[in-house]
This record gives sequence, C-alpha cells and structure tokens, in this order.
Amino acid sequence: MATIKEETVVRNKKVVLRRYVTGQLKVDDMEVVTTTVQPRVPPAMSTPAVMVKNLYLSCDPWMRGRMTKHDEDAEEPALADFVLGEALVNYTVGKVIDSTHPEFVAGDFVWGVNAWEEYTLVTQFGALLKINHPDLPLSYYTGVLGMTGLTGYAGLFEVGKAKGGETVFVSAASGAVGQVVGQLAKIAGCYVVGSTGSDEKVALLKTKFGFDNAFNYVKEGNDLAGALRRYLPDGIDIYYDNVGGEMLDAALLNMRRGGRVVVCGMISQYNLEEPKGVRNLQFVIPKRIRLEGLAVVDHFGLYAKFEEEMAGYLKEGKVVVVEDVVDGIDKAPEALIGMFSGRNVGKLLVALTEE
Amino acid sequence: MATIKEETVVRNKKVVLRRYVTGQLKVDDMEVVTTTVQPRVPPAMSTPAVMVKNLYLSCDPWMRGRMTKHDEDAEEPALADFVLGEALVNYTVGKVIDSTHPEFVAGDFVWGVNAWEEYTLVTQFGALLKINHPDLPLSYYTGVLGMTGLTGYAGLFEVGKAKGGETVFVSAASGAVGQVVGQLAKIAGCYVVGSTGSDEKVALLKTKFGFDNAFNYVKEGNDLAGALRRYLPDGIDIYYDNVGGEMLDAALLNMRRGGRVVVCGMISQYNLEEPKGVRNLQFVIPKRIRLEGLAVVDHFGLYAKFEEEMAGYLKEGKVVVVEDVVDGIDKAPEALIGMFSGRNVGKLLVALTEE
Repeated sequence: MATIKEETVVRNKKVVLRRYVTGQLKVDDMEVVTTTVQPRVPPAMSTPAVMVKNLYLSCDPWMRGRMTKHDEDAEEPALADFVLGEALVNYTVGKVIDSTHPEFVAGDFVWGVNAWEEYTLVTQFGALLKINHPDLPLSYYTGVLGMTGLTGYAGLFEVGKAKGGETVFVSAASGAVGQVVGQLAKIAGCYVVGSTGSDEKVALLKTKFGFDNAFNYVKEGNDLAGALRRYLPDGIDIYYDNVGGEMLDAALLNMRRGGRVVVCGMISQYNLEEPKGVRNLQFVIPKRIRLEGLAVVDHFGLYAKFEEEMAGYLKEGKVVVVEDVVDGIDKAPEALIGMFSGRNVGKLLVALTEE
Repeated sequence: MATIKEETVVRNKKVVLRRYVTGQLKVDDMEVVTTTVQPRVPPAMSTPAVMVKNLYLSCDPWMRGRMTKHDEDAEEPALADFVLGEALVNYTVGKVIDSTHPEFVAGDFVWGVNAWEEYTLVTQFGALLKINHPDLPLSYYTGVLGMTGLTGYAGLFEVGKAKGGETVFVSAASGAVGQVVGQLAKIAGCYVVGSTGSDEKVALLKTKFGFDNAFNYVKEGNDLAGALRRYLPDGIDIYYDNVGGEMLDAALLNMRRGGRVVVCGMISQYNLEEPKGVRNLQFVIPKRIRLEGLAVVDHFGLYAKFEEEMAGYLKEGKVVVVEDVVDGIDKAPEALIGMFSGRNVGKLLVALTEE
C-alpha cells in the first residue's frame, strides 16, 4: 500500500446533472465540475470504506431514464432518479488506492456501481466486485464482462430460453449488449440476424462478430417488416429488443408461433416526450408470443458463472469485443448524447487515465 | 333411434358471410339463407358421419378475425378466414339425430366446432365432444363448460400462474370469459377487480359474481390509469386482458413488479381499420412484466380435468352463470354486432329451438 500524506489533495472532476430532462437530452443538461478530494479513506471513519480511483466509466442507455423526474408512484422507474448537482451514477471500473475494508486492499482492481467522478469513496459494498480476470482488458468489465454482458447472457438464455437451431433477431446489434447476444447465440447454435444503423456496422456484424446476416435499418426504414421477412423468411423465434418502437412492431409481424420477445431496452423511445405506440401487439394471441421485460439486477446470482464462462470465450477468441473509447471525463456528456443518436460503434465507455 | 323416412327434407337455415369486412362489422355483411337438408347421414357415405341438430350457437369475439381477408403470410391469423357464402363456423351445442360413427348414437348431446346452421353433417371428429354433464343446462357448453370456460381457466392458471393472495384485474369482466376468470380467481383466493361498460354490469359483477370490486370504464374513460390506481392501490399481479388498447396501457402503468398480462383478446381493436398503439409497453422492463398471448387450442389437453372441476363448482353453486340468449337463427347476425358494442350481458348465445 502506497503511503499517502494526509494533506494531499487531488483534483476530482465529476459529471453532474444540472436539470431533469424531458425529451431530447442535451450536452448542457450535464456539467463537468471540478472539486478536490483527499485520495484516502478518512481516518475518522468508523465503518469500513474503500477509496477507488476510477479508470473507466460505462455509458449505458438506462442512464437516460434516471435523468427524468418521475412521479412518486404513477410510474415505476427501473432505477432511482439521479440527484441534481451530484455525480451521475453508473458502472465503473477502478483501482483501490486505500481501504479499511477487510476484503479489499490497495492495488485491487474492482468494478461496480459507482459515481461518474475521478475518485469515489465507497462505503456500501453490495455492488463492488473484485475483478477476477485482470489479465483481460480491464475495460471489458464495463461491458462484455460486466452488466452489459450479463444482460445479454441472462436475456438470451434465462428470459429468451434460446436453444440451438432457433432463429434470433437482435436490434442495436453492434451495441454493447447486441454484440454479446449475437455471439452467444451463435455459440449456442442459433441462426442470428442483427439490425444496426450504418453500413459500416453491418459489415462489423457480419465479419467481426460472425452474425449470419445483418441489415441497416435506416435503409430499410420504409418497410422494416419486409426486411425481416427477407432476412428471416422462416420467422423469428427470439427477438432480443434493444430499441422498441417501429422495429418491435415489425418483429411482432414476423415472430414464429411460440416466439419470445426479450425486452431489454427501448432506446428509440427514451428521448421522445410521448412514446410511439406499438400497433401489432395483438399478434401475441395468434402467434402465442411471450414478451418479457428484462432487468439485469434480477440475474446477479448468475454473475460468477457468467464471468467464468465469458472469460473463457474471450481467452479462446470465441467472443470478440469492439469498444468505442472516449478519452477524458470532460468528454463524458458528449459521449452520452452520441450514444442516443447511435454515433458510437460498439461498447461506449470513457477512459479517465492511461493505466 | 328415431326412424327418419328417406324422403324427409327439412329446412336448414345458415348464417353466411357475404363479404370480407374491414373496419366496423355491419348486419348486412352477413345473411341468413334458407336451404334444405335430409336430416340423416346419407347411406352412401363410406366414412363414419354424424348428423347434428344444432341447439345453441356460441357468439365469440374471435369470430371477427375470421371475417377479415388475411394476406397469405404477412400476418398469421389465429384461425382460417371464413369462406364467403358458406355457414360461419364456431362452437355449437347440438343433439345427434343420426350416426354411423361408433362413438356417437342418436340422442347424444354434443358440443364442438360446428357450423352456424340448423343441421350439420359432421364428418371430422377432432372437435366433436360428448357432453358429460347433460344434467346442467346444455347451453353452458357454449360458455362456462366450453371453450370460453377453458379459456378463462387456462389463461388464469397456465399462462397467468395465479396464486392465492395475488391481485387480479379482468377487463370485459361480465363477458363470457371475464365472469369465469373472476369467479375462478376468487375461488383461488385472489383479490379481484373487474371493468365493464355499464353500471348494471358493475352491479352484476359485485353482487352476482362476487368480484371484490368493479368499475364502469365508460365513466372513468378520461383516466383509466387513475381508476386502476384507486381500485387496486397496491397494483396488479395479473391483468387478464380481453380488450387491449387504452385499458392495456392503463394496466401496464399499474402492474406490480413481476406481473403477468394474459392477452386473451383485444376486442377494442377488432373493428378498427388501424389498431391503436400501446404506448406504455416500455414498463415491462422496470416492472419485469411478462405479457403472453393465449390461444385456448393449445390447452385442449386440460379439458377433461377442467370439465370435471367446473361442473363441480357449478353444482355446488360456487360458480354462477349469466347468459344473454337470443332466440332464433334469424337474429344471429344482429346478436354478433351487439357483442362488439358491448350490448350483451354475460355469455352471448343464440338458441335455435326449445328443447
């Protein structure tokens, strides 16, 4: 453990929310503020604590939901609203630089729910995990080995009940969750088609991630249902939905009898003041479709099993990863905005320092 | 077996579809035509057959779907389109008046998928069942002891997985399926609230069917979500959806975490040229809702168990039945129209003769 002088004070930039957001998220809804911190656990603290230097911030679509002020019980948000003026909260990867907790020592690499700032004093330990495979890129714990990876895994197998020989359609397929879903479905023996927003990403899906086929939804915009019918003429057993809206409507028309729609996200709807309606829901009856919402927190119990399985695939090269890394906390607000317009290619994250 | 002279010919009125329907169904889309039939199995027939004199015709919302011409595979209808100029097809209750099939004899009461006509020569036996409880009103086999009863039973327990102590909300609650769902849910120990379209029906739900509470959706039309919040302040575990549309949107806002939406019907949408969108589907994620389509044909295997259980409840008075009986096949088209505007109170059926 490095010795830190008590008087040392370091810069601690934070990304804070300035106001609750309706409709389109804008850069100036957020602000990067500079504060200072003593980078150690205060000696006077009576309960165990860990000082973490954050290395990577994970950018995830669900953060948008926490930026809207929710009525107390008219709607139930997945996660609590962010607190104005305080650092945003989401998954990060970091390094322990000081610890009074018996399970963590300085030098440990950790990941978990943490604040969007350079240093965080962690005092609650339900969501701080040690990184068991530091030989893999640490940033993977913001994505493929973190919550997004587990989201893909649990959604595909626990909710979707994917089996070999089935057809799987994934929207936002080159995104953090989509790329994991597609590759895991291929490993399981499924036929996999993905949709994404540019020809560059279509190529990525087919060459890099091994999807059986992929299409650019922007080009097919006038007839998404027709596109799905062409790419999956025998229909869809599992639709892994990251976008909602019109693509969900198109998929409902193309589901096979007994198909499952895993609703992981509806990113097309998050920045709309009024969500668009889903018009083809009635097909759940003739097609006996099961549509189910996925909240990854319900599947934490799978994490240890998942981490080992996924680390194995990564080391064997069976799963590959594409990341879109933004350098520096100052660029974090802009990076988040870009995610909602599909600007990123692959898992989006912010790197805070080169370690 | 009554002796029938070979030359005897009797009137055989049929309800036929004159044209495929878009939008609102009208009386003159159908026609009652008069033909004649020899009321016996033709002696020349080489395969077993049964001549059935129909006693009751069941009116069910799913008939509407068969009146629209469907594209060959753009959409998958639950049931094949009706054939223009031929008798409509749906569940009926009848009496065998002649049989060359070893399992049926004249005098047997039967129910099953049959034609909307006075006499039907049955040559396919997958969907003709003997009535095992002729001591109960025969008309019950169009409803509580037939497909609508099984629909309620399978939807509530097989798809909805209802358990004692849960809250159940049923729309179109005084209808054929709704009244069964509510009463079975009460027997199972659930707290049950129903919605319906008139104060008269609200009273029926509370006094006759023993619902814990009920409301008139027409009066609450401006704020269905608010009504549900008042009637089910702790939220809904199971929404048994017979109507779709705005009520489904309101229910999605009021589901409890882990709730199930059993999609049995979307009667509010069947007569619309363009279905209304469901805007609150995104709540399936934070609330981990499972929404699943129910097609009763998938649950035929349960029928024998269900018939015994339900006959027991009926004989003990634990389940009561309200029927809306229309007299005479000439009134069948008008009766069907009335069903879509909610004019009927309870299970709607057409009685063809007084036996």
